[in-house]
Amino acid sequence: MKKTYLDNAASTPVDPRVVEAMLPYFRDTFGNPVSFHEWGEQTSDAIETAREQVASMINGQPGEIIFTSCGTESNNLAIKGLAQNMSSKGKHLIVSAIEHFSVLHPVRALEKAGFEVTYVPVDEYGLIDPEQVAQNLRPDTVLVSIMHANGEVGTVQPIEDIARAVKDSGAIFHTDAVAAGGTIPVDVQKLGVDALSLAGNVFYGPQGTGVLWLRHGTRLAPLLEGGIQEADFRSGTHNVPGIVGLGKAAELAKKEMEQRIDYLVSLRDMLIEGVLKNIEYSILTGHRQKRLPGHASFCIRFIEGGGYASLLE
Amino acid sequence: MKKTYLDNAASTPVDPRVVEAMLPYFRDTFGNPVSFHEWGEQTSDAIETAREQVASMINGQPGEIIFTSCGTESNNLAIKGLAQNMSSKGKHLIVSAIEHFSVLHPVRALEKAGFEVTYVPVDEYGLIDPEQVAQNLRPDTVLVSIMHANGEVGTVQPIEDIARAVKDSGAIFHTDAVAAGGTIPVDVQKLGVDALSLAGNVFYGPQGTGVLWLRHGTRLAPLLEGGIQEADFRSGTHNVPGIVGLGKAAELAKKEMEQRIDYLVSLRDMLIEGVLKNIEYSILTGHRQKRLPGHASFCIRFIEGGGYASLLE
Repeated sequence: MKKTYLDNAASTPVDPRVVEAMLPYFRDTFGNPVSFHEWGEQTSDAIETAREQVASMINGQPGEIIFTSCGTESNNLAIKGLAQNMSSKGKHLIVSAIEHFSVLHPVRALEKAGFEVTYVPVDEYGLIDPEQVAQNLRPDTVLVSIMHANGEVGTVQPIEDIARAVKDSGAIFHTDAVAAGGTIPVDVQKLGVDALSLAGNVFYGPQGTGVLWLRHGTRLAPLLEGGIQEADFRSGTHNVPGIVGLGKAAELAKKEMEQRIDYLVSLRDMLIEGVLKNIEYSILTGHRQKRLPGHASFCIRFIEGGGYASLLE
Repeated sequence: MKKTYLDNAASTPVDPRVVEAMLPYFRDTFGNPVSFHEWGEQTSDAIETAREQVASMINGQPGEIIFTSCGTESNNLAIKGLAQNMSSKGKHLIVSAIEHFSVLHPVRALEKAGFEVTYVPVDEYGLIDPEQVAQNLRPDTVLVSIMHANGEVGTVQPIEDIARAVKDSGAIFHTDAVAAGGTIPVDVQKLGVDALSLAGNVFYGPQGTGVLWLRHGTRLAPLLEGGIQEADFRSGTHNVPGIVGLGKAAELAKKEMEQRIDYLVSLRDMLIEGVLKNIEYSILTGHRQKRLPGHASFCIRFIEGGGYASLLE
């Protein structure tokens, strides 16, 4: 029986054009980008091209792109790095109750270190009310982090409205856009955020690649220290093939987004309608319209999820 | 004119057999290893194989391998994570004066956070005297970190003797073996260390891969938090192709180490003799015998290094 992979929210296969773009950087163009010779200059140029490709996808500046090793690193760097850098100004954070563990666990670590955290709840569709964020802002609120889209239930948050609510408070606004970036249009100017996390393996790029976009002028304390890479925000030898692949994936995502969305939405809606109609006790989780184009998630009442998933294989 | 790449200490090309091993994991076997289905199990199995391959190269246990994104991350995790975890016992660290920036900068961050640090000097050959480490141990010394080999001047340290000096003090002994691992025999049992850093791109594995080996029973505070990967020591979606490639590179390094060393030593010695004989004012840096097999480094008196390097291209 032909099996169909339906777990792209966890990790996508890599686009063949992305693999193609990466291949020369394993054996032919392999220098360390910080090296002071031709081999280093070639890979350094390749990284700058990728920086432009990623920046272009989210309407940011190349100099605002920090390459990391995954979405989890981007979120950890944002939460710990921004909070630590702002701690002299205040020690209050706001996050949603449904953030990814790579946001929630760093936040809990900060709580143990003396920060105070407000967890904003969501409604039955997984939506956050911007008004609730606004009401919880305090003079000592230094960081607000609300995810762009939720990878479990697919709900897309009204980030633009939340950013507007946060804007004049003086707090930094970070969004974990790992599930959204490369999948739906993400425009950092339109969204009005200060920092935004991405991961390559969610939009047909390679695993082991992530990005923290950080608006020009925003500062943070680094997690990985060493000295020279990524403007001191993130040290460590660059993963050149990975970064090249991430750049290519971003370029393709920007170019093909509209047609990808049309295709995925048609498949998604067919699946949602089919399941709700034919499977007894099934309930759609998340929001019917405000959800990721390729995302369908259900609860089947009276059935234990893990066992059910095994039966589907 | 044919150009010869002589900067393998900064990054090696990837072995074609390593690229071959990685390729299926971009498009054919691409699940997220934590996913609860066939695709996830396949990549989870692949990661466990890599864990065995890396552990075997350094004579450790597979369960002691923490996969990271680079040597810098391994060193940051070791220094910050171990020091933070031991801070209730004491706040004194010992490192050598010639550690890599990915050790020295985290150490400086700890100094700012209230730790006290002793920097042990080296002699004219870049060698550390184990006796000097022993003399600086105090009851509140919680961590000693001395690099295995120096990537700049090539000197290999007497890690076994240093470990013996540290052993009964109660301090944890970490060694940055990024320049040594996969290049010379590194046996964690023989060395007697508690933690050891590796990077794949130094022994023909892919960039963007690193390892922290942590002796069973040793604890540390994680840098990247999220929840489930690498026994909570390092969260983040696994870089499956990278980890598979790292494992393959480790397997090959173990199998071919003896012949690689013989070959590299013969080339190295030819280069060293040739330069010292034919280039006026040239001096070998580091130790003549106790140095990495593929490592030759020189000072040319009266000449500025950067400009000279450009002329060599």
